[in-house]
Amino acid sequence: MSTEAEGAGGGHDLRHHGDAEVRDGGAALVDLAVNVRADTPPAWLREHLAASLGSLAAYPDGRAARAAVAARHGLPVERVLLTAGAAEAFVLLARALKVSRPVVVHPQFTEPEAALRDAGHTVDRVLLRASEGFRLDPAAVPDDADLVVVGNPTNPTSVLHPAPVLAELARPGRTLVVDEAFMDAVPGEREALAGRTDVPGLVVLRSLTKTWGLAGLRVGYVLAAPETIAALERAQPLWPVSTPALAAAEACVAPRALAEAAHAAHRIAADRDRLVAGLGEYAEAGLRVAGPAEGPFVLLRAPDGAGVRHRLRELGFAVRRGDTFPGLGADWLRLAVRDRATTDAFLRALGRALDRGAGGTGQEPA
Amino acid sequence: MSTEAEGAGGGHDLRHHGDAEVRDGGAALVDLAVNVRADTPPAWLREHLAASLGSLAAYPDGRAARAAVAARHGLPVERVLLTAGAAEAFVLLARALKVSRPVVVHPQFTEPEAALRDAGHTVDRVLLRASEGFRLDPAAVPDDADLVVVGNPTNPTSVLHPAPVLAELARPGRTLVVDEAFMDAVPGEREALAGRTDVPGLVVLRSLTKTWGLAGLRVGYVLAAPETIAALERAQPLWPVSTPALAAAEACVAPRALAEAAHAAHRIAADRDRLVAGLGEYAEAGLRVAGPAEGPFVLLRAPDGAGVRHRLRELGFAVRRGDTFPGLGADWLRLAVRDRATTDAFLRALGRALDRGAGGTGQEPA
Repeated sequence: MSTEAEGAGGGHDLRHHGDAEVRDGGAALVDLAVNVRADTPPAWLREHLAASLGSLAAYPDGRAARAAVAARHGLPVERVLLTAGAAEAFVLLARALKVSRPVVVHPQFTEPEAALRDAGHTVDRVLLRASEGFRLDPAAVPDDADLVVVGNPTNPTSVLHPAPVLAELARPGRTLVVDEAFMDAVPGEREALAGRTDVPGLVVLRSLTKTWGLAGLRVGYVLAAPETIAALERAQPLWPVSTPALAAAEACVAPRALAEAAHAAHRIAADRDRLVAGLGEYAEAGLRVAGPAEGPFVLLRAPDGAGVRHRLRELGFAVRRGDTFPGLGADWLRLAVRDRATTDAFLRALGRALDRGAGGTGQEPA
Repeated sequence: MSTEAEGAGGGHDLRHHGDAEVRDGGAALVDLAVNVRADTPPAWLREHLAASLGSLAAYPDGRAARAAVAARHGLPVERVLLTAGAAEAFVLLARALKVSRPVVVHPQFTEPEAALRDAGHTVDRVLLRASEGFRLDPAAVPDDADLVVVGNPTNPTSVLHPAPVLAELARPGRTLVVDEAFMDAVPGEREALAGRTDVPGLVVLRSLTKTWGLAGLRVGYVLAAPETIAALERAQPLWPVSTPALAAAEACVAPRALAEAAHAAHRIAADRDRLVAGLGEYAEAGLRVAGPAEGPFVLLRAPDGAGVRHRLRELGFAVRRGDTFPGLGADWLRLAVRDRATTDAFLRALGRALDRGAGGTGQEPA
C-alpha cells in the first residue's frame, strides 16, 4: 500500500469503461467486460417499466421512489437522494461539497477520481497492493484527507473490505464515500454500511444498474446525513431522474425484488466459484486470481495479459483490460461472472488463448 | 423595457414550476398549468420506447441519436449535444462556460437564471414590458453582457421574437443562448435559429418534452459551435441520457415525427385562436391577453388574477400562476392550449370565476 499524488489521470485513461470494449468489437463478442448481469432486466421489471411510459407527459415526481428507498434501508427520506446513476452522484459529490484534500483508494472504479479532477480538485491516491491481497489498512489514508472514496466490494479487485475497517476511516470533518454499487450481489449484503447512521460523514452510493440490468436507464441513490443530501440536491438539475428510472427504483427496492436479488447473489457466488476453480486450472501457465473474490466479477493476472485479451477477442470473448485502473498494469484482466455455459465456453477459449501465447498452435484437439 | 440587477431570485420563486400546481391539487384537476401536450406521447412512440427497454442492460450509446439530431438540422455531429432535458443544459451552460456578466431577458422560464445563480453568478435582468407587447429591443441588453439568455417563443409570454432581432444580439465574445423549447409548436418553425452557423456565439436549446409528451423522460439537445459543445460535454456526467431517452430523440427527429409535429403545430394554432377568441369575450371584465400569442400557451392578465386562479381550482381547472416570473405579478396567469372541448369547458369555468370575483353568485343559469 502506498500514497501518491498524480498528475491529471496519472497516465491512466480514467474515462475508459468496459462498454467501449464490447461496443467497438461488434455484436458477435460474448461480453465478459461489462459488470451488468447479462439476463436482465427480468420480464416483470420490463413490463413495469413499459407501464410507466403511459405517464411520460408529466414531469417526474420522485417522492414515491425516495420514500421506498428510505423504507428499504430503514432511513428517513431526508437521508436519501435519487440520482441519474452513480455517475451523477460522483459529479455532485465533487462539485457540491467543500473539499480540500480528496483521497481515492485504488485500484477502483475510476469515475470518482475523474469527476473530482474535472471539478478542479487535486486528488491523492492510496494504492492497495496485489501482494497484500488488495487489503485496506486504514492507517495508510492520510490523516488530513477530508474526502475518502472507497468501493466495497471493490471494482475491479472484487475484494470485500470488512465494514469495521471502513468505519475506522470515518472521523469528524471527513466525508467517507463508500461505493456499494455491487453490494447487493454479495450474499446477505455482508459488510454493507448502507442504513448505518452511527458513522460520521458516511456517504453510501448504491446502484440499481448491475443487478437489474438497468445500465441504460440511469438510476442510483445516495444515503447520507440530511445536510449532505441537501447540498447534493441543490447541485442537481431540475427533474434529474426520469419517470421510468423512478419507477424502476421503487420496484427494485420492494420486498419481491429484494428477495430476487438475494437469490441471485447466491447464484452469482456459485457461478463465480466455478469460474475461479476453472481459472485455477491454468495456474501452471502463470495465471493468478486476485482474491478472495466477493463481487460479481473476478480480477486476474496473466503473463502477456494484453496478448491474451487480444486472442480472446479473436475467439469471440470480450474481457475488461486492467491497465486503465491505477495500480494495475497490462497483465491484469477483469471478467464478469456469467452463467455456467458461458463460463465453460470462456474457460475453453482462455486455454487456447494462453496456449497460443506460449507458442502453441491454438488448435483444440479434434 | 428596463435592466435590473437582482439579489438571489429577486423575490421570485425561480424554482416554482407548473407541475407543482397540478400535483398538489390532486388528479381531479384539468391541467392547463403545464406546457406539455396532453394527448402524448402517441401510441407509436410509446411502442418504440417499450421496445428500447429490452436493451437496458447495456450502457447508453448516444451516437445514433446525436447523428439523427445533427441530420435533422443539417449540422455536423460536433455541433450537437444530447442532454437530460433542457434543465441539464442550463446547469452545464452555467458551470462550464467562462462567463462574467450573464444577462437573462425576462419574463421567461426561470430555470436558466436559477442555474446561473446556483453556479455562483450574479445575474442581471432585462425586463420586457407588457405595455410594449413584451417586444425585445436589442439595444436594451448591456453591451458588456457576455452571456445572454432569451426564449423564443418565450415562456410565459408566448411572444415570438423575429430571428433577425435575436441575431442582432450576437457579437464576438458573447454567448447568445436562445431557448427554442417551444419552437416546434410554431407552424413552419418561423423565426428559428436552430441550424444556423452564421451567428457568432449562438447556442440553441431544443426540447422534445413538450410536443411529444416526454417530460418524464428527460431529453433535449444543444446546438452550438464545436468548441462550446466540447466544453459542455466535459461537464456532463458519464452516460447523461438514458437509453429510452436516446431512442425517443432519434425517433422524434425522423421525417415521420417531424411531419406529425408540423401538423400538430397548425392544430395548436387553431386551438389557440379559439382560446384567445373566447378570452376576448371577457374583455369587459378587464381580462387582457398578451400577444400576439405564438406558442402553445397564452398569457393573460385579469383583475384579482390570484382570486380567479383559486376559484378556477375550485371549479376543477389548474392554471399557471404568473407571479413567480420576474416582470409579472399576481394578476397574470398562463394557460396551456388544449383541445376544443377542454378549452370550451375552461372558458365556461372562467366566466364563473370572473363573475364570482365581481360579486356574482357563481351559479350558471339552469
